[in-house]
Amino acid sequence: MGENENERGNSAYGRKPFRRSPSHFTDRITANGAEGWPVEAGRYRLIASRACPWASRAVIARRLLGLEDALSLGIADPLQDDRSWRFTLDPDGRDPVLGIRFLSQAYDARASEYPGGVSVPAVVDVPSGQLVTNDYQQLTLDLATEWTALHRPGAPDLYPAALRAEMDQLMATIGRDLNNGVYKAGFATEQADYERACRALFQCWEQVSQRLAGRRYLMGDTITEADIRLFTTLVRFDVVYHGHFKCNRWKLAEDPVLWAYARDLFQTPGFGDTVDFDHIKRHYYQVHTGINPTRIVALGPDLADWLTPHHREELGGRPFGDGTPPGPVPPGEEASAAGRP
Amino acid sequence: MGENENERGNSAYGRKPFRRSPSHFTDRITANGAEGWPVEAGRYRLIASRACPWASRAVIARRLLGLEDALSLGIADPLQDDRSWRFTLDPDGRDPVLGIRFLSQAYDARASEYPGGVSVPAVVDVPSGQLVTNDYQQLTLDLATEWTALHRPGAPDLYPAALRAEMDQLMATIGRDLNNGVYKAGFATEQADYERACRALFQCWEQVSQRLAGRRYLMGDTITEADIRLFTTLVRFDVVYHGHFKCNRWKLAEDPVLWAYARDLFQTPGFGDTVDFDHIKRHYYQVHTGINPTRIVALGPDLADWLTPHHREELGGRPFGDGTPPGPVPPGEEASAAGRP
Repeated sequence: MGENENERGNSAYGRKPFRRSPSHFTDRITANGAEGWPVEAGRYRLIASRACPWASRAVIARRLLGLEDALSLGIADPLQDDRSWRFTLDPDGRDPVLGIRFLSQAYDARASEYPGGVSVPAVVDVPSGQLVTNDYQQLTLDLATEWTALHRPGAPDLYPAALRAEMDQLMATIGRDLNNGVYKAGFATEQADYERACRALFQCWEQVSQRLAGRRYLMGDTITEADIRLFTTLVRFDVVYHGHFKCNRWKLAEDPVLWAYARDLFQTPGFGDTVDFDHIKRHYYQVHTGINPTRIVALGPDLADWLTPHHREELGGRPFGDGTPPGPVPPGEEASAAGRP
Repeated sequence: MGENENERGNSAYGRKPFRRSPSHFTDRITANGAEGWPVEAGRYRLIASRACPWASRAVIARRLLGLEDALSLGIADPLQDDRSWRFTLDPDGRDPVLGIRFLSQAYDARASEYPGGVSVPAVVDVPSGQLVTNDYQQLTLDLATEWTALHRPGAPDLYPAALRAEMDQLMATIGRDLNNGVYKAGFATEQADYERACRALFQCWEQVSQRLAGRRYLMGDTITEADIRLFTTLVRFDVVYHGHFKCNRWKLAEDPVLWAYARDLFQTPGFGDTVDFDHIKRHYYQVHTGINPTRIVALGPDLADWLTPHHREELGGRPFGDGTPPGPVPPGEEASAAGRP
């Protein structure tokens, strides 16, 4: 499950190691509609927070695949309140398409009880106002493989059939030790749990860094879903995970390979143009009062460095394979001015 | 005032900007004994914490000047309890020379009431058991200028008369924006106070870095008290101030000039051999529960980097002027094994 109730305030800080709850609503939207939710342009709305790495995967995939017109996007306020994610960034505090003030209303429309809380990403069926899925693991894979009829011309293949076995294994390791590892370290309440998570994180980091030393992307010459998943953690690393979550063996900016790799992706259309550093920083520093009671938001690091040359093109590669980069960000979907480098 | 009661637990986190209390006991130990405390070998005991930057100034000056035999040293546990600094590292939990369990006992022997709490560094008169001074600003200057009769042969002049006007000004700026600036940032409870402190800190940092780009030490070719004061902040920067105090515009390790300067001093006898990174990390992360309620101690960064070549000798310089480096650390005064790179 993505950014949810369990990560707010003190509720995550029990005596047990942090565990991410599984997603509760795992319906799939598919080409043939076998689960009752057929792929259909304009029918669904993706609700995300730009703060959340799990939700940001879907925001990036949507851009790369050119699904902006087919699947609309609502952005929640980076600061939840007692009622969780809310649409306080929108006029009148309501999502303009769903007409609701809190994402929980779409959950309520779907089910009267749901363990695990309200999380993003969430895909909502617009006609009924019901949540369809909050399964962040499956969602992006389905965008890549089930929504193909609605992809833009030149959309990349983010989950190539020939690579899936290797990708699944790699994404599982990165998911456990990096994507979720930072949370296990940051939310630990026992020194041993923290140290175990932190050591596993940097061990995995070294393996990934070695893998990327000689190849442009995780799976070779072309961007895949695996890169999306690694990117959403790396882009948050120095601004929140390094200090706020105490993952401080080194900064991303101190690893020449991964720092160049992350900048390469950031500067690729569809990646950096979805990132809002202001949302990221305010969310982590102000919501997790159990580890930052003063709610002070750290000033650093300098963000302009994200735009410096990365020289990864010297490794060759075809970022979009036989396809092309996505076009510009649709009007109204730009990250906030405060959140850009 | 050095590390004191006001920096423990939640007590520092009022609504006002952090202010360091002035030292309360400002008696001076002088060559002529004008204030009733004459310089005398074996009469006084310096109580320090290796966690504390203010106390560490005195520990370094004592080493550089070769005062180890004349002025004995007691090291407090890096973790205070409700009764403040304590001698739980010593056999039976008592300072072997003073026979006391808590530094507060020397304060009590001196005065029945003392605002500002119990702080290190503290110099205690061994015969009476009374605190003489906790004035960390004056203490090191007096070690350099009043204790000269007891200096080792070859001791450097840490406070040269010809440089004092410039040094005083420089040390005041560094004291306000760097030495104390990290605390103002770290203990801020209002975003504006934090940002003001953090901006001033890095502005001062840039000036100091420029100053040191072409000269080996702050005052030129030779180590002075100004270097001691800058060093005790820099050596703590990446291990505690960068993350725990949110001074994260950049790491020390990201500034080529100051990082090399700090390593140069660290590798100079009298500096690095006084440092205990374990004491530093445990103190900051475990005592300041108001900003780190979980008391988790961060694992990073890698400390071995402190021992890498710095190449600052290419700038020339005579580290000890007409003098010589101090000898080895006296037996029993070594930093803990866990606290060394």
